[in-house]
Amino acid sequence: FPSKQPQVQTTIFTKMSQLALEEGALNLSQGFPGFDCSEELQELLKFYSKGFNQYAPMAGVPALRNSIAEKTRAFYGIDLDANSEVTVVSGATEALFAAVHCCVSPGDEVIMFDPSYDAYDPIVRLAGGVPVHIQLKASKGFRIDWAELARKITPQTRAIMVNTPHNPTGSVWSMEDLEAFADIVKGTNMLIISDEVYEHIVFDGAQHASVLLHPELRKRSFVCGSFGKTYHITGWKIGYCLAPEYLTSEFRKLHQWVTFSSATPLQYALADYLKTPEHYLGLSDFYQKKRDLFASFFAGSRWKVLPSQGSFFQCLDYSAISDEADVDLAVRLTQELKVASIPVSVFYETPPADRILRFCFAKNDDMLQEAAQRLANL
Amino acid sequence: FPSKQPQVQTTIFTKMSQLALEEGALNLSQGFPGFDCSEELQELLKFYSKGFNQYAPMAGVPALRNSIAEKTRAFYGIDLDANSEVTVVSGATEALFAAVHCCVSPGDEVIMFDPSYDAYDPIVRLAGGVPVHIQLKASKGFRIDWAELARKITPQTRAIMVNTPHNPTGSVWSMEDLEAFADIVKGTNMLIISDEVYEHIVFDGAQHASVLLHPELRKRSFVCGSFGKTYHITGWKIGYCLAPEYLTSEFRKLHQWVTFSSATPLQYALADYLKTPEHYLGLSDFYQKKRDLFASFFAGSRWKVLPSQGSFFQCLDYSAISDEADVDLAVRLTQELKVASIPVSVFYETPPADRILRFCFAKNDDMLQEAAQRLANL
Ligand SMILES: CSCCC(=O)C(=O)O
Ligand SMILES: CSCCC(=O)C(=O)O
Repeated sequence: FPSKQPQVQTTIFTKMSQLALEEGALNLSQGFPGFDCSEELQELLKFYSKGFNQYAPMAGVPALRNSIAEKTRAFYGIDLDANSEVTVVSGATEALFAAVHCCVSPGDEVIMFDPSYDAYDPIVRLAGGVPVHIQLKASKGFRIDWAELARKITPQTRAIMVNTPHNPTGSVWSMEDLEAFADIVKGTNMLIISDEVYEHIVFDGAQHASVLLHPELRKRSFVCGSFGKTYHITGWKIGYCLAPEYLTSEFRKLHQWVTFSSATPLQYALADYLKTPEHYLGLSDFYQKKRDLFASFFAGSRWKVLPSQGSFFQCLDYSAISDEADVDLAVRLTQELKVASIPVSVFYETPPADRILRFCFAKNDDMLQEAAQRLANL
Repeated sequence: FPSKQPQVQTTIFTKMSQLALEEGALNLSQGFPGFDCSEELQELLKFYSKGFNQYAPMAGVPALRNSIAEKTRAFYGIDLDANSEVTVVSGATEALFAAVHCCVSPGDEVIMFDPSYDAYDPIVRLAGGVPVHIQLKASKGFRIDWAELARKITPQTRAIMVNTPHNPTGSVWSMEDLEAFADIVKGTNMLIISDEVYEHIVFDGAQHASVLLHPELRKRSFVCGSFGKTYHITGWKIGYCLAPEYLTSEFRKLHQWVTFSSATPLQYALADYLKTPEHYLGLSDFYQKKRDLFASFFAGSRWKVLPSQGSFFQCLDYSAISDEADVDLAVRLTQELKVASIPVSVFYETPPADRILRFCFAKNDDMLQEAAQRLANL
C-alpha cells in the first residue's frame, strides 16, 4: 500500500499512555485529569440522555452557542454573534483541522512555534501546506521573539498558529505579546489559528491574553477552544471555533464534511453548565496549587523545575542527571520507576540539545507526590 | 477572503431542516428518527456519565471495539481483529472523510454513483481527488450497471465509493452484485469505500450484502458504519471503520489528526448495548411496517411510489402532478403544505429530468399519516 502520509506517525500521547498502561505506571504523560468532572455536570448529562439523542444542527445546538457567546462576553468582555461567529465541533483537534483546511491551499506556508503541539505540523501537511517552524528557546523561557517571526514571514505565509497557555512548556503570553503580534500582522492578509484550550488555567494572577482581546488579531483569527480541560471532560470531545463571520462561514464548509455535527446530549449538558462562571473561575487556583505541590518535591533534587505559567504541564530539565535522549529516558522511567512523561523533543522539527520531560500535574495530590518522590531521588 | 472551496455549499439537510423549523413543517427531510432511543440505552449512558469522562484511546475504547468485532462475527460470520481492524470515530461522516483522505492523492479518480450522498463529492475534492460520477437510472431501479462501471475505470482510479442500502433511493445490493463487483476489482489495486450505515434496515426478507461477505472486496475495503441509524441515536455521532490492518493503520493516521478520539461515555454505553443482538435484529421489520404504512396513503394518488428495499427513505415521483423542479417543489411543499422533503436532484453532478422527492419515514405513525394525507391530495 503506497502510504499517502508516510511522515504521519502514531501520536506520542497514544504511545506513552499505552506504555504506561502496560507497565502499570503512574501516567503523567498524556494531558488529562486523573479525577472526574463535577457531579453537577454528570447530572446534567443524565438529564439530557432522554430526548436529546438526534442530530444537532451542523453549527452546534443554539443553546450551547448562546452559552459560549455569553461566557465570552462575561469573561473577556467581547461580543460574539452566536449564529455567525461560534461553531461547535468534535474537540479542539477538529477545530484546528477544519480551521487549517478551510484556509490553507497547497504551497501555502504556515508558521508555528516549536515546541509545538504534535498535531499542528501534520494537519498543515495534510492540507498541502508547508509548515515553517520557529524554535523557541528554553533559555529565553520559551517566549516568542517577535522580530524573528517578522523575518520568517514571506509572501507565501498564509497563517500563523499560536498557542497560549502553551503546551508543552506552560509559557503564557502577556498583553504586550498581543501588541507585538498585532504590529506584525497589521496590514497583511495573514490569518491566525489560535489554540486557547488552556484559557482558564493561567497562574500567578495573570490574565489570559486571548487574541480575541486585540481587534487587529481578532478580525483574522480562528480561536480554537475546548471544554475538555476546563471541566475535566477530555473524553467528551466537544470543542468550538470562534471566528468572524467571513471565516466562520469557510470553517463550517469544512466542519460539515469532516464530522457534520457533534454529540447532542453532551452539547445540551454543557449549554446549561456554562451558565455558571464559578465552574471555571476557580480553575487557575486549583491547578496552581497542584503545580506548586508537584514542584515542591523537586527542591534539592538534580531536576531543574522550569517556569510553568499556565496549562497543567510542568517541564523538568534533567541535564544535571543524565545525558540520555529524552525519548529514551521517558521510556526508561516508565519501565523502571513506573512514572510516564512526555519527551519534549518530539514537539520540534529539529530538536535542540535540551534535556526536558513534560509532566501533567492534573492528577490527585497523592499521585503527584508519589510520582515526584520516585523521580526526585534520581 | 479567497475561499479555498467555492464549490462547497451548505448541506441540503441543514437547509431543509432549518426551513422545516421556520415553517413549523412536518420534517421528513433530514434522515433522523422522530422518536427516542430505548430507555435501556439511556440508562447505560446515565451509568457511564460517572467515571468515564476522560480521553478514550485514539482507536476507540477496547470494550466497544470488541463488541463491534463480536457483532460482526454474530451477524456476518466474519472474524475481525478488534485491535487492528476496527476503529471508532466521530460518526460515519468522519469515517468517510478519513478513509478518503488516507488513500486519495491529488489527481486520483474516485468513482461514485449518482444519486450519491451529498458528502462524497466534496470529501473527494477536499482530498484533491477527482470525483467520477456514474448515473443510476430511476427506470432501472437505481441498480448499478456493472459493465458501465468497468468502462469508467482508468489507470487513475484509486477508489470506488459504494453504498447499500442506498441513500437516497433505498435500493439494495444482492449477493450477485457483490460477485459482479468483485469480478471488476479483482487483480487491480483499487480500494473500496463502502457506506453501510443502513445495514440493519433491509426489507422483504433480504440479507444485507455487505462487502465484508466477499473476500475479494473485503480485502480492499473501508467499511464505514454508524450506530446512529441502528439505535435511534443520530445525535451521538459514534461511527466506525472496519478495514484490513494495512488499511486501518493508514486510516488511523488520519483519524488521529482529524478528531483524535470520540466521546468516551457514549462509547462505553454502546459497548454494553451492542452485546444484545435483539437490539438490532427487529429493526428491518420495524421500518418495513413504516414504509408500508407511508406508501399505503398514496394509493390512488398521482404520486408514484418508487421501490424502497432498505434504509428509512421513500422516494416519490411527482411527474404526474407537476413539472416544477424538485428543489422548488420541496421548498413550496414545506411552506404551503408544511411537509419537508429532500429534492433528489441535489445528489447528482448532472441532474436528470426526473421529478423525485425523498421522504424519511423514521417518524411516528401519526406523523407519517398526517404528512402523507397532506401530500396525497395534490
Ligand atoms: C489528544 S491527546 C493529547 C492530550 C494533550 O493535549 C496533551 O497531552 O498534550
Ligand atoms: C448528516 S445529516 C444527513 C442525514 C442523512 O443521512 C440524510 O438525511 O440523508
